[in-house]
Amino acid sequence: MQKMSTIEYQPIGIIHTPFKLSEDAPAQGCFAQESRGEVELFPEYAEGLKDITGFSHLILIYHFHKAKGYELITKPLLDKDKRGVFATRYFKRPNSIGFSIVKLYNVRDNSLEVGWVDMLDGTPLLDIKPYVSLFDIREDVVDGWFSTASEIDKHLSK
Amino acid sequence: MQKMSTIEYQPIGIIHTPFKLSEDAPAQGCFAQESRGEVELFPEYAEGLKDITGFSHLILIYHFHKAKGYELITKPLLDKDKRGVFATRYFKRPNSIGFSIVKLYNVRDNSLEVGWVDMLDGTPLLDIKPYVSLFDIREDVVDGWFSTASEIDKHLSK
Repeated sequence: MQKMSTIEYQPIGIIHTPFKLSEDAPAQGCFAQESRGEVELFPEYAEGLKDITGFSHLILIYHFHKAKGYELITKPLLDKDKRGVFATRYFKRPNSIGFSIVKLYNVRDNSLEVGWVDMLDGTPLLDIKPYVSLFDIREDVVDGWFSTASEIDKHLSK
Repeated sequence: MQKMSTIEYQPIGIIHTPFKLSEDAPAQGCFAQESRGEVELFPEYAEGLKDITGFSHLILIYHFHKAKGYELITKPLLDKDKRGVFATRYFKRPNSIGFSIVKLYNVRDNSLEVGWVDMLDGTPLLDIKPYVSLFDIREDVVDGWFSTASEIDKHLSK
């Protein structure tokens, strides 16, 4: 098998949130619907925000910059049992790529005011994509172990 | 402002699809619901697939390996008008990161049989995450320019 080459990305901005430590951050944005943050896009990319104000939700792709190492079988935040890492959203994974759907409240120049944030303050931003119903809302979804996750109620009531 | 460092990822697998050329690939998986592909995870990561069979849908994060360059204002596949790149899902973007939600049909060892695929054959895989209703299905979504995109009906009827 051909060895595939390393892929390099440059951060396009920084995500500012109230969460300085991983123990302060919610497991997912849905558990912190009141949380607000700012996506600061580096000014050289600001032009790419044209038309973004029409969307209610955005997908943010970012780097888990504080994650160190990973295990293929790991204990997720929402369950007591260990799970395969690709069946979890845990931040310690082979490539430290984070994915969150945030609510878009306001856009000013190169700065986006967003809600439902769950990432650490200072997170390097890699991409912004619009969340689109037709593409991103799926029907007949079966949620695997999350449907009976033992710790999920605790997070919902936070 | 502090310059942020380059982020490096290693592909964890390869996505095999019927689409050899970008003109053959659908704009999104929802336009090719019959399309089938195989996610080949490199064997050293196979253990991380534990518990994945319980999920109906997976999020794949991957590298648009054939994308060359980008423009901040760009013509998306589904509209005649130019849009800000971050308000599109177009593959030519500052960081060539792709995101698709696929249907999971079958898992055998380090191989996943998936549907609704829209990526090119040979795409380097960066991450697999479970699609979870509570996290990923949002209500009151406003779809910006996509809600009146001039070319969307053409793709739906393909």
